[in-house]
Amino acid sequence: MKKIALIMGSSSDADLVRPAEEVLRDFCVPYELHVFSAHRTPQEAAAFAKNAREQGFGVIIAAAGMAAHLAGALAAQTTLPVIGIPLTAKVLQGMDALLSTVMMPPGIPVATVGIDSAKNAALLGIEMLAIEDASLAEKLAHTRKAQAESVKAADQKMQRSDS
Amino acid sequence: MKKIALIMGSSSDADLVRPAEEVLRDFCVPYELHVFSAHRTPQEAAAFAKNAREQGFGVIIAAAGMAAHLAGALAAQTTLPVIGIPLTAKVLQGMDALLSTVMMPPGIPVATVGIDSAKNAALLGIEMLAIEDASLAEKLAHTRKAQAESVKAADQKMQRSDS
Amino acid sequence: MKKIALIMGSSSDADLVRPAEEVLRDFCVPYELHVFSAHRTPQEAAAFAKNAREQGFGVIIAAAGMAAHLAGALAAQTTLPVIGIPLTAKVLQGMDALLSTVMMPPGIPVATVGIDSAKNAALLGIEMLAIEDASLAEKLAHTRKAQAESVKAADQKMQRSDS
Amino acid sequence: MKKIALIMGSSSDADLVRPAEEVLRDFCVPYELHVFSAHRTPQEAAAFAKNAREQGFGVIIAAAGMAAHLAGALAAQTTLPVIGIPLTAKVLQGMDALLSTVMMPPGIPVATVGIDSAKNAALLGIEMLAIEDASLAEKLAHTRKAQAESVKAADQKMQRSDS
Amino acid sequence: MKKIALIMGSSSDADLVRPAEEVLRDFCVPYELHVFSAHRTPQEAAAFAKNAREQGFGVIIAAAGMAAHLAGALAAQTTLPVIGIPLTAKVLQGMDALLSTVMMPPGIPVATVGIDSAKNAALLGIEMLAIEDASLAEKLAHTRKAQAESVKAADQKMQRSDS
Amino acid sequence: MKKIALIMGSSSDADLVRPAEEVLRDFCVPYELHVFSAHRTPQEAAAFAKNAREQGFGVIIAAAGMAAHLAGALAAQTTLPVIGIPLTAKVLQGMDALLSTVMMPPGIPVATVGIDSAKNAALLGIEMLAIEDASLAEKLAHTRKAQAESVKAADQKMQRSDS
Amino acid sequence: MKKIALIMGSSSDADLVRPAEEVLRDFCVPYELHVFSAHRTPQEAAAFAKNAREQGFGVIIAAAGMAAHLAGALAAQTTLPVIGIPLTAKVLQGMDALLSTVMMPPGIPVATVGIDSAKNAALLGIEMLAIEDASLAEKLAHTRKAQAESVKAADQKMQRSDS
Amino acid sequence: MKKIALIMGSSSDADLVRPAEEVLRDFCVPYELHVFSAHRTPQEAAAFAKNAREQGFGVIIAAAGMAAHLAGALAAQTTLPVIGIPLTAKVLQGMDALLSTVMMPPGIPVATVGIDSAKNAALLGIEMLAIEDASLAEKLAHTRKAQAESVKAADQKMQRSDS
Repeated sequence: MKKIALIMGSSSDADLVRPAEEVLRDFCVPYELHVFSAHRTPQEAAAFAKNAREQGFGVIIAAAGMAAHLAGALAAQTTLPVIGIPLTAKVLQGMDALLSTVMMPPGIPVATVGIDSAKNAALLGIEMLAIEDASLAEKLAHTRKAQAESVKAADQKMQRSDS
Repeated sequence: MKKIALIMGSSSDADLVRPAEEVLRDFCVPYELHVFSAHRTPQEAAAFAKNAREQGFGVIIAAAGMAAHLAGALAAQTTLPVIGIPLTAKVLQGMDALLSTVMMPPGIPVATVGIDSAKNAALLGIEMLAIEDASLAEKLAHTRKAQAESVKAADQKMQRSDS
Repeated sequence: MKKIALIMGSSSDADLVRPAEEVLRDFCVPYELHVFSAHRTPQEAAAFAKNAREQGFGVIIAAAGMAAHLAGALAAQTTLPVIGIPLTAKVLQGMDALLSTVMMPPGIPVATVGIDSAKNAALLGIEMLAIEDASLAEKLAHTRKAQAESVKAADQKMQRSDS
Repeated sequence: MKKIALIMGSSSDADLVRPAEEVLRDFCVPYELHVFSAHRTPQEAAAFAKNAREQGFGVIIAAAGMAAHLAGALAAQTTLPVIGIPLTAKVLQGMDALLSTVMMPPGIPVATVGIDSAKNAALLGIEMLAIEDASLAEKLAHTRKAQAESVKAADQKMQRSDS
Repeated sequence: MKKIALIMGSSSDADLVRPAEEVLRDFCVPYELHVFSAHRTPQEAAAFAKNAREQGFGVIIAAAGMAAHLAGALAAQTTLPVIGIPLTAKVLQGMDALLSTVMMPPGIPVATVGIDSAKNAALLGIEMLAIEDASLAEKLAHTRKAQAESVKAADQKMQRSDS
Repeated sequence: MKKIALIMGSSSDADLVRPAEEVLRDFCVPYELHVFSAHRTPQEAAAFAKNAREQGFGVIIAAAGMAAHLAGALAAQTTLPVIGIPLTAKVLQGMDALLSTVMMPPGIPVATVGIDSAKNAALLGIEMLAIEDASLAEKLAHTRKAQAESVKAADQKMQRSDS
Repeated sequence: MKKIALIMGSSSDADLVRPAEEVLRDFCVPYELHVFSAHRTPQEAAAFAKNAREQGFGVIIAAAGMAAHLAGALAAQTTLPVIGIPLTAKVLQGMDALLSTVMMPPGIPVATVGIDSAKNAALLGIEMLAIEDASLAEKLAHTRKAQAESVKAADQKMQRSDS
Repeated sequence: MKKIALIMGSSSDADLVRPAEEVLRDFCVPYELHVFSAHRTPQEAAAFAKNAREQGFGVIIAAAGMAAHLAGALAAQTTLPVIGIPLTAKVLQGMDALLSTVMMPPGIPVATVGIDSAKNAALLGIEMLAIEDASLAEKLAHTRKAQAESVKAADQKMQRSDS
């Protein structure tokens, strides 16, 4: 199976990124965790992205805050799909990161998920790998069903407690 | 090759969606164009998404404006990756559509591109199909190279005209 | 009397929705509490809305956060009035939910109240039922009078403490 | 049948309000059109709202721009449901009117529709009247069906033109 | 001397309004404190404003949050200058109150100060009274001088601690 | 009667400021028109404000766009009330000017009116002068009455045309 | 004298950047004009920035719109001061570009000027070169004086036309 | 070496400004710390800026919140480059300060850094001084290298802990 690269712009982002790791582990999708900074280690970031496909990666996930250039900088170096997670920082609640990640110029897309939505980034990465992988698609469908069951259980519990 | 579904919320969105069609044609990626409304034909939208994988689709692209629920509504019915294009409408310049598309709850991701970025949505869809398709990846790399050449040519032209 | 359906997108929204319940109880308006997710249990949500009128409901209230599609998804399936409560989530203070709820396309309205304004949603629902129900209208008028008396008392207390 | 009051804050808003009139005429719902200003004729506005129920009105719709106090000022004087239409003005694209209309304090709700969404305001008003009026509910259902048919036709037309 | 009316929309706003009281006391400007709600006691608010000039008031200050109509509702009933203080509430940090207060329609101005800037509202009210009152103007100038001295002292202290 | 100073930050703002001039002329309030820039002629701006009271001015109105410092810079030099008109510029629709004008630090208030609301700025200035001037207050009341009549006439015309 | 590099992200930005060129020519400051894209020609952009100091550049100015990474990407490769000009694009009026340019992470600053403020970017670049260049500082002072004279002339003209 | 002036609008800003001091000390760049208020001590602020060049300053850094006029007011009085740090205050998270600082009118630039980015302001000031100072440029390059090493170390640590 292709690997997923899970890249954060700073080691201080680790807590916000953790839910993505957990999803990848739950799905037994092989992944690598990296710290690359679009501004502090641009060469390393670029080199990683440029070689990612031949290193066996299928998807790159990049999490960054503020003027969040990381996802775009990686996307500029690869034709693998790059998923961007805009992170909250001390001010502006992630709106700066969201706009810096999603408003990419024509030609270089970034697949942006919600602010701090690391879990959804991982699920989206798995959905991409599952396009051609029936057993992974099965697992995704299973998870969806479990989600639905949990909502239905909550609904029924509310009926009971309400009456 | 898997097909791409290109869905708009209203036939009045056709012009904003056209650049995606052009990219898909240029890459000879098979696609289907549909008008489904999350609010006016929710059953049709849901039925399409639910059957999309077995109908041979690999990726769904959904374009909608205002309280843009289309991408999310489709994503709720499939584990195929769903790409959302937030469209501008008469007011708010697409900010409503961007937030309605990207801020999805945990469990149901939407791969959001920039406001009105139909071209990038198509390229992102192709990148997803190209994860396991070397010749499609090649075409993407070729397009990137052409983009770069065009920027380099613009740079050189500016040097000449400037001196 | 027609019932009011009070629906939340996740059981974690229960605390934000509680003030609506309290109002409905105070007015002795029959209501049902449900958890339906536009994205995790879309079928259940749709089925409920489609049958709501014949199940004796007169108004549906839907509370959801982030890309808050719940009210719109329910409104798409019924011609009962649907009241949307945009909820705050971890970021953006409910602006995403407000725009996702209120900016509905032509043809499918959602009666949106303020961010986290569960109390007002319930009052609005009761006002709708009271259009044809004189005794309910009376109760509403009584509540308004009590509100006014409480403000007048606060004003008078301030005069005294000020002098 | 109860009447609907359609009130605008200035005669210059007439064009933005017209789509509501058209809907009300199409549904043969009796309505009255008024110009009341929350700031320039506050007494007239208040008097109208205070007497609206006994004058045979079931719903009040109020359209205003900028610091749009009209809907709130009317809601303060009646327990009929008041629908607010935030209108665009020369600057800010209606965001000022949206927040001024929707963020009402606890106790006095306004049922807010999208910016400039006069058509939806009228439909919402009719939905309220239709809670207890089966034939009106029928008409609403009919309109919804027509909307759906129009989207389906657009979808089919796109299939044909696309192939 | 003319009095200043200091009006808040709810007794829960008292803490945010207190700095205005302190300024008025420091300047020995006579004032009255009131709780009037544009939505819960609109008649009382209107009556107060209508009679304010003949009751000896020279300026009205109104503090309110959310869809902050109070200042505008008072301004609609008097030709005395009305100063609006937009207050923060649970969400949106006062942006809703700012726009609801400042974006008044042509003909009915509100003199808006910064969000939660009760102190500045009181100073502005005093400046208005001081247009024709030389001794009050003197006191204002004195306060300004004291402010400047305090900044200069902070500057000098910083020089010393820095060296 | 005290004069009003009407100051703009650039001669290119003249058109946006004109409605203020018209109001001042209609009310026969003496005024002076100036171009002072907080950034290009800061000394002239400061000198004017510092001497304004003894030159017979009672109120200063300042109109500026973008990082609109003009009103604040003038307010820093005088204890006369300063009214700020935030002007629209090429981008951001005046939001930058609004925040730059209204969010003044404690101690130096600016009486801010709506974006591009020159007419209201003039009316507010006249209201300030009218605190102690009964005949000016009379004229203001007269204008308000005329405004109300015009709205009432529009309302009646709409009734007729509607029937 | 050190040169200034004036870099735009796309040749379509040339018109927005032109005012910077004009200033540089007026001041006879040597400059080079380039088109480098942070996303389409990242290597070329990086290589240019890395060598800029030894190529005789003293300042880099970078203009880009949308998710404007150009200034940050250049700043990551040089310790020369980098000035960022956020450009407007089809939507959002440059707010995306402003936040993408200014909200840089600690360690890599970008000197951001206003949206579309190419003229100010050039003046700022010249101010940087003039820190150690008395004759350039002289020219800047001269320009400032001319600006002030022009404002003063506008003020005097307004006095005359007004009387 | 030229000195850097580090100016804050209020002594209460000292904590937010401290990171700039630390950078200046680390780089052994001579600096002076001042408290000048654009509104409370405008003369002192203006006088300082007017004389800054001849007092041996090369760069002025100004930190202020809310309607942050300080950087612009200083820039109006000098042709030295002025760096603005928009500070957060009690509400709006620094957006008011950002727009008040960055959206300067043509002719008077301010080099704006991110909200609360005092560290970057100092680094930017040093970059300006380093244009003509090879040893200072060296130190900057050294700091950049250390930053990169720290990111690389974090990356490697993550690899180890991950396996």
